[in-house]
Amino acid sequence: MKRVLNSVGSVPGFKASGIACGIKPEGQTDLALVVSESPAVAAGVFTQNKIQSPSVKVTRSNLAKARTVKAVLVNSGNANACTGPQGLEDCRVITRCLGKELGVPSQEILVASTGIIGVPLPREKIIGALPQLVRRLSMNGLRRAALAIRTTDLTTKTARVEYGRGRQKIVVGGIAKGSGMIHPNMATMLAFIQSNAAIDSGALRIALKQAVDGSFNRITVDGDCSTNDSVICLAGGRTANPRVGENSKGFHAFADALNEVCRILARKIVEDGEGATKFITVRVEGAKSTRAARKVAFSVATSNLVKTAVFGEDPNWGRIICAVGNAGVPLRPDRVDISLGSIPLVRNGAPVPETSPERIKKIMRKKTILIRIGLNSGREHAEVYSCDLSYDYVRINAEYAS
Amino acid sequence: MKRVLNSVGSVPGFKASGIACGIKPEGQTDLALVVSESPAVAAGVFTQNKIQSPSVKVTRSNLAKARTVKAVLVNSGNANACTGPQGLEDCRVITRCLGKELGVPSQEILVASTGIIGVPLPREKIIGALPQLVRRLSMNGLRRAALAIRTTDLTTKTARVEYGRGRQKIVVGGIAKGSGMIHPNMATMLAFIQSNAAIDSGALRIALKQAVDGSFNRITVDGDCSTNDSVICLAGGRTANPRVGENSKGFHAFADALNEVCRILARKIVEDGEGATKFITVRVEGAKSTRAARKVAFSVATSNLVKTAVFGEDPNWGRIICAVGNAGVPLRPDRVDISLGSIPLVRNGAPVPETSPERIKKIMRKKTILIRIGLNSGREHAEVYSCDLSYDYVRINAEYAS
Repeated sequence: MKRVLNSVGSVPGFKASGIACGIKPEGQTDLALVVSESPAVAAGVFTQNKIQSPSVKVTRSNLAKARTVKAVLVNSGNANACTGPQGLEDCRVITRCLGKELGVPSQEILVASTGIIGVPLPREKIIGALPQLVRRLSMNGLRRAALAIRTTDLTTKTARVEYGRGRQKIVVGGIAKGSGMIHPNMATMLAFIQSNAAIDSGALRIALKQAVDGSFNRITVDGDCSTNDSVICLAGGRTANPRVGENSKGFHAFADALNEVCRILARKIVEDGEGATKFITVRVEGAKSTRAARKVAFSVATSNLVKTAVFGEDPNWGRIICAVGNAGVPLRPDRVDISLGSIPLVRNGAPVPETSPERIKKIMRKKTILIRIGLNSGREHAEVYSCDLSYDYVRINAEYAS
Repeated sequence: MKRVLNSVGSVPGFKASGIACGIKPEGQTDLALVVSESPAVAAGVFTQNKIQSPSVKVTRSNLAKARTVKAVLVNSGNANACTGPQGLEDCRVITRCLGKELGVPSQEILVASTGIIGVPLPREKIIGALPQLVRRLSMNGLRRAALAIRTTDLTTKTARVEYGRGRQKIVVGGIAKGSGMIHPNMATMLAFIQSNAAIDSGALRIALKQAVDGSFNRITVDGDCSTNDSVICLAGGRTANPRVGENSKGFHAFADALNEVCRILARKIVEDGEGATKFITVRVEGAKSTRAARKVAFSVATSNLVKTAVFGEDPNWGRIICAVGNAGVPLRPDRVDISLGSIPLVRNGAPVPETSPERIKKIMRKKTILIRIGLNSGREHAEVYSCDLSYDYVRINAEYAS
């Protein structure tokens, strides 16, 4: 009975908006707001970078203090990172102003920022735009919010999963941004998810952590983690749905829907990877542990040599096996299998001679490439998503003016 | 009294040659030989990749068994990697044939290979060329050997350091290859060093390990380690020089010369990095430990975002500080300083406003870029060498046919 949708629509109990407040130079929208009609429970997962934006710090601190959350305010065009004590003060003033506007204490406001590093946040522009941002809130505003959080993104990323029926229908809807600096632990990516599920805050934290681990922490574009990555999930609000706790019947269904939303958003981020022409799935099987499988998968998925080979449509298994050996995971080289989709390239560490070059060529021309690696030394597996490394990646990142 | 030279000249007691045996398609030289006139002591440092070429395995095993070494045979164009039991057998037959040709047991022959992975070594071509290769041995053959070990290299890499005088003159001379797949633990790079120093084999092993650690293990082009990396040093031969042991007076002078040769060769490899237009030195100071300094330096030196920014001549310190935070090393963000050469960009984690954009632009236009990072939390430092990421890197690696 689960329905998966690409468009976000509205999530019962939530309103959103997105406008231009003048942070971005050319009048693009750059300020987004998601508001829960009544107090919502909230959970967040944040960047592992040792250098964190004041926006992340304020949000973490508010999440720790407040029992419920009213709203999430997001600006694009400025990361508010490396902005020192001023950056922290800017966040405090902004959350205070928005709290006043919405009639809640400032600690019920969460914030997130993305964009250029080291430039003070244009606080007055943001504060000046808050009344209009609140006025524009609407049931169908999530798409506009999704547009306003973009930076180098070429696509607007939304996802929605529903389950249950009638008045018991549960909706999980999310928006995300991110296209460069993507790596496990969620580099320069933001995602905001809402649900009308009446879930306990402890259960929500557990579900979100699991969902992020199986989605945003499995993608890589260029191996860098940012100062600002955040995934924030609000749930509940005014709802007639049955209460969901960690051990209650409804937990599994909710977690499942949340996983799906996170996976869709994560996949869209990789598909929109800077300069990407191909979506690469690296699946490692037969590992001794999930951790080992994941390490091998990431070693292959982040190898510039593998990524350029995929861009060049070259089935270069030598680079793949080299990256496998580089993962630092103990393995038996003479047991390693590699295939491209269903075509075996390497068996027991040696090339498979009978493979038809025409079939391989055809597979390499596709937009989605599946690299399967069998270690044949255990029963665990892991999957990681990546994209190719193209001329455009270099162009975008060499021309981006700091 | 130390003299440092870029050209390799001859090393007393050694002969070398380089010819074309037909591994490479277009008649380029692809087979090199270095021979010690009399038995030499030898030491080697090899790739950390879990998947190692049979050539590496045979050389490691011979080094462990033989007290002295007579020769090193190197082929380019074929890595003899992932070639299974056949690859091992090929190496054994080839070393046996060359041993016969030179009148020594096969375990006194070391081998190294570089080139395409997964294609069986054309053993008969190599064996057929051995008599000619031996015939062409000459005092001045090292440069031809340096040419014959190249793959995608655009330059021939040689270095020579001399110290002492007259009949007591010690020469350390080396050749190297490598331009892609370069990363600590010496990815797809080979270096062969000879010296007439009468050093003990234990002392040679210690000196070589230290020298590699300070040179080849400090460079990165694209973060990948290969299946074939080897640094091999032969020393002694018939020599009238005073015996050098680990604790003897001459050890320091020898180690110093070996360090210098390795540093020059390592630097030449980075300068010849695939598609490189700029040489980047990342220097991290004020760290709690050398290990921490090195981790931070490598995080910056391997960041695709930093490397593309340098290619685009953009002083993007936001990406640098982001990579600093990504190293996983505990640090105080509000103490981080970053400068480009002598120009401060970041002080105490925040941008330095007074820096003149013109001066920065001028520095970014240079061929060699020095990124200095001060952590201000200790007294240790480390330096790592890298290059930028250009369109040509993508072109070379996307077009390279596997």
